[in-house]
Amino acid sequence: MDVAQDSTTRRRLLRLLAGLPLVCSFGAGRALAEEGPTSMPAIAAIKTRRSVRRFTAEAVSDELLHTILACGMQAPSACNEQPWQFVVLRDRALLAKVGGINPYAAYAKNAPVAILVAGDTRLEKCAGYWPEDCSACAQNMLLAAHALGLGAVWTGIYPLSERIAGFQKLCGLPDTVIPLALLVLGYPAETPAPQDRFRPDRVHRDRW
Amino acid sequence: MDVAQDSTTRRRLLRLLAGLPLVCSFGAGRALAEEGPTSMPAIAAIKTRRSVRRFTAEAVSDELLHTILACGMQAPSACNEQPWQFVVLRDRALLAKVGGINPYAAYAKNAPVAILVAGDTRLEKCAGYWPEDCSACAQNMLLAAHALGLGAVWTGIYPLSERIAGFQKLCGLPDTVIPLALLVLGYPAETPAPQDRFRPDRVHRDRW
Repeated sequence: MDVAQDSTTRRRLLRLLAGLPLVCSFGAGRALAEEGPTSMPAIAAIKTRRSVRRFTAEAVSDELLHTILACGMQAPSACNEQPWQFVVLRDRALLAKVGGINPYAAYAKNAPVAILVAGDTRLEKCAGYWPEDCSACAQNMLLAAHALGLGAVWTGIYPLSERIAGFQKLCGLPDTVIPLALLVLGYPAETPAPQDRFRPDRVHRDRW
Repeated sequence: MDVAQDSTTRRRLLRLLAGLPLVCSFGAGRALAEEGPTSMPAIAAIKTRRSVRRFTAEAVSDELLHTILACGMQAPSACNEQPWQFVVLRDRALLAKVGGINPYAAYAKNAPVAILVAGDTRLEKCAGYWPEDCSACAQNMLLAAHALGLGAVWTGIYPLSERIAGFQKLCGLPDTVIPLALLVLGYPAETPAPQDRFRPDRVHRDRW
């Protein structure tokens, strides 16, 4: 398990190093301090993020959730329509029912919190783009969670009609609010090693 | 223009501070060094990223493009299908034709480079999810570009059939490869101020 240990060491070092900019910051102090407990660099966050499906019992604070939700809402959207709605699920009875809607997300019953990301079709300005907007939003939230020391996973809902109906019923959503994904979050009880997914064969130059 | 100046100062300071971890890194040195010229923290990158549509004439190196493409390919995907394909557009004749397909992206003719992000439907394992996968991929790339000091903008293609056909023809894509978005990139000739998009009314607790 050398890779996992190396990953843990790296995480500890990143946390240690995270304090340095605060010492040096003067004009930029406020922006840096806003980040909270970690300053994991963006490229490192993108490259080391993996899906986490096992969590400790530790609760996730409202402060961290606020940062994660705020990061989601910073996503770009078509015509800047910002069509997202969120349902923060902490109710254990609701989390226990997730597996009945999507068996691949049954582990939500052991997670401290999940966030349903949904598209509000009444907010659309450029028709057809809300799933892309909400996906960019969800990816921001996954990266933020990882940078903040949490683990998270994107479990798919849209475009599967049974899952859409199931989550609409679970949370009492209006018909016009379409669940895209359920992000399941918590402090990680597993640390998947970073995985290099670069594939040069997928990159074309000017023409196919 | 206080905000813009503050943003420039912050960027310069972040660049300066970016060198510090390299001095302190020993075990974690390789991972940190991989990030290149900037260590902009992830949360800051997410919160300060804005769409940039005006670029300087400065070329974007293949090394930076490699990092951006690699960050795109790190995105999560349904069933880990990684259905993305990319076309890096540097050919000025091709970039000049973008406006004829999507007039809202005509400024691509003045950009040093653009990246077409497309879904390869032959690579799908979980039907219907490739647009979400490719959107998460595109968002990773926008954040990486911003963290690396570039400006970028997501211009929409899918699900508009005329735009899909236009870009398929422009780049000679097979019918099974569906363009999702064209990311237009370069060194920024404008610095839009960060914008707080948090809306508390979009956050629901357990039920709508």
